[in-house]
Amino acid sequence: MNSNRPAFARWLDNTNDVTRLFLAASQTPGMINLAGGLPEPSVYPVDELAGYAAKALRDQPLDALNYSPIEGLPALRDAVAARYSRDGLSLSRNNVLIITGGMQGLDLVGKALLNENDLIAAQSPAYLGALDAWRPRQPRYRSMFPDSSDFDAHRSLADAQFAYTVPNFSNPTGKLIGAATRQQLVSAAHELGTWLLEDDPYGSLYYDSEPLDSLLYLSGRECTGNYDGPVIYMGTLSKEAVPGLRIGWVIASPEMIKTLTIVKQGADMCTSGLSQLMTLQALQTGLLEKILPYMLNTYRERRDALCSTMDEQLEPWFIWEKPVGGMFVWATSRNPELDTSLLLAEALKVGVCVSPSVVFDPEGNNTSALRLNFTLNPPEKLVEGIHRLAQATQSLLTHHEAG
Amino acid sequence: MNSNRPAFARWLDNTNDVTRLFLAASQTPGMINLAGGLPEPSVYPVDELAGYAAKALRDQPLDALNYSPIEGLPALRDAVAARYSRDGLSLSRNNVLIITGGMQGLDLVGKALLNENDLIAAQSPAYLGALDAWRPRQPRYRSMFPDSSDFDAHRSLADAQFAYTVPNFSNPTGKLIGAATRQQLVSAAHELGTWLLEDDPYGSLYYDSEPLDSLLYLSGRECTGNYDGPVIYMGTLSKEAVPGLRIGWVIASPEMIKTLTIVKQGADMCTSGLSQLMTLQALQTGLLEKILPYMLNTYRERRDALCSTMDEQLEPWFIWEKPVGGMFVWATSRNPELDTSLLLAEALKVGVCVSPSVVFDPEGNNTSALRLNFTLNPPEKLVEGIHRLAQATQSLLTHHEAG
Repeated sequence: MNSNRPAFARWLDNTNDVTRLFLAASQTPGMINLAGGLPEPSVYPVDELAGYAAKALRDQPLDALNYSPIEGLPALRDAVAARYSRDGLSLSRNNVLIITGGMQGLDLVGKALLNENDLIAAQSPAYLGALDAWRPRQPRYRSMFPDSSDFDAHRSLADAQFAYTVPNFSNPTGKLIGAATRQQLVSAAHELGTWLLEDDPYGSLYYDSEPLDSLLYLSGRECTGNYDGPVIYMGTLSKEAVPGLRIGWVIASPEMIKTLTIVKQGADMCTSGLSQLMTLQALQTGLLEKILPYMLNTYRERRDALCSTMDEQLEPWFIWEKPVGGMFVWATSRNPELDTSLLLAEALKVGVCVSPSVVFDPEGNNTSALRLNFTLNPPEKLVEGIHRLAQATQSLLTHHEAG
Repeated sequence: MNSNRPAFARWLDNTNDVTRLFLAASQTPGMINLAGGLPEPSVYPVDELAGYAAKALRDQPLDALNYSPIEGLPALRDAVAARYSRDGLSLSRNNVLIITGGMQGLDLVGKALLNENDLIAAQSPAYLGALDAWRPRQPRYRSMFPDSSDFDAHRSLADAQFAYTVPNFSNPTGKLIGAATRQQLVSAAHELGTWLLEDDPYGSLYYDSEPLDSLLYLSGRECTGNYDGPVIYMGTLSKEAVPGLRIGWVIASPEMIKTLTIVKQGADMCTSGLSQLMTLQALQTGLLEKILPYMLNTYRERRDALCSTMDEQLEPWFIWEKPVGGMFVWATSRNPELDTSLLLAEALKVGVCVSPSVVFDPEGNNTSALRLNFTLNPPEKLVEGIHRLAQATQSLLTHHEAG
């Protein structure tokens, strides 16, 4: 850097290189990438989306190509409100903000609610992207462990600006927050007033059972009339259909939607009209429901291939639960001394890339677990990837004992 | 607001309602909107863009629908680099970041360079959207007056994290920064090290003459090899073609592009692949050059209609310069006591909406000027709008004298 240039902002001192490391690794020929969180592109409904694009540009060229309202196109806001409304949860357009992918929702909520040093109660381990999105606001974190037997929702949420949860198949752990804990979180949020952020990219990816009630729904039952509760729900087209249109949605109380709209104006003014009109047609034609069975079958088969190979290959060194949904398996080393960041370096040498736990810990302490993705690769690659990972583990432990 | 909910972040105490006031006003039947900064939709090349969308989804469905690289698609970064490269300005892909509309560039630069209370040297009056984008970072401002005869670029830029300029037809004033002042700004930035933000949405909208050299080009002449200077140039498709695809680009030194890429990852992860592929085809086929003559003729005619009606109607109360480009006329009251925020209220009563100067002043002091847009409305509406504005001015002054 030119030495007399002004310094970058202080929060940038603490950014991590992990995502870029992953991206670089994914360019290496022959590398099996179990590190990312990417969908399988063969699930993308390309022909339908091409039809929607053509129709949007033919029938509503101004809505597609002009500035949209900051909040999103009214018809799309209505369609999202209708999709989530049910007995006990009444939503209108005023409960919905269209956003430029799910990540933008995290950025907007951080700007809306965080002064420097404000407290976030975050499900731990937490989504790396959320930590990245909030880093410019320089918050403090309190780790929440909603799957621990002594979890106390009141104590966890007290004094926080908001609590951050991914109840359906958390990234990175793939864990599901159970029905009783969901109710505790919602009750605590209603009593304390704390905002409760429900980040739900994986909510449609239940492989073995019916979906549990969302925090939004559980909270809506405590509202009369249109939703006005403390839950800030975030959904995205990225995992239900395609990421490349950059469409997500926030569902929250009208006061929160109004504030997030002010914040969005200064972030990107509005979301692409063309992408919004394509999403509207996807909702109107039931496209998401239509493609879901193929997606679930594909991902279930991959999860099963990964987990059965893990049973064969990794059982001596790691423990994990087979996830009932989502995109990830979380494997914890039986030996707490095994540093998975060192294992990543070893794994890259033999052609497999995984995510070490340290990057998902707001406090940076968890160094003995791994996140493994099973949605991007076909079964035979997953099997080969786990064989390579076993080889790398063996190799690291040999060095460790030798050293 | 539910009284026991956590408060919104402090910077939100200082947001303004003006944009929402404008948007609401634009919904009122019969209202003539001279307040916004919108393009004329008949200039949008709908058929060409529909062809590009179809081709992108047919030939490159994965590039269109998957996550893009955070920095943007390599081919589009190359095309932007090639478009701006010339003798004395050598650019590569590493100098280019694709962004989700020009506004996002402002947000990213603010996050990259501003700690609370850091100094921005901002051309005054300044673009409202830039002030909005930076408000979450809580900077200080020093006003720069680059068109004043005693402008001292060194003194203006000293100690600032960056200087913010719109050299081509500033929003709100429509003024052009002259060639000599451009050179002074660039020289001062090179000597002091200060980053120099060149926001250039209107750079193609010269109605009467050839474009002046950009700050980027003037700064590039002082670099050897690929660009590594202090200018952060921001361009956008929104005013050259259409806003609804949400595409813009930052051109800067590789170190700045790398940092902005980290910041963008936490803001919206990446920009729509479909929008990027459509933009790439627009650049490859020369679409922007093809539609420019019609756009310039349309806007020139409208500017002339607005300004000649102002000559007839507003001369007793306001002074202004006929702009040689851009989208706006800036009119200053001859009577410094005339408060244009009060005039706006009066104007809305008679069916015309204008932008009062107070919203463009980082220090909130300028209350006696107006911004008038001439690109959105056809000549006959502009004429009627100015007649209504004259009526409102007369009415306000009558009340004032009576009161």
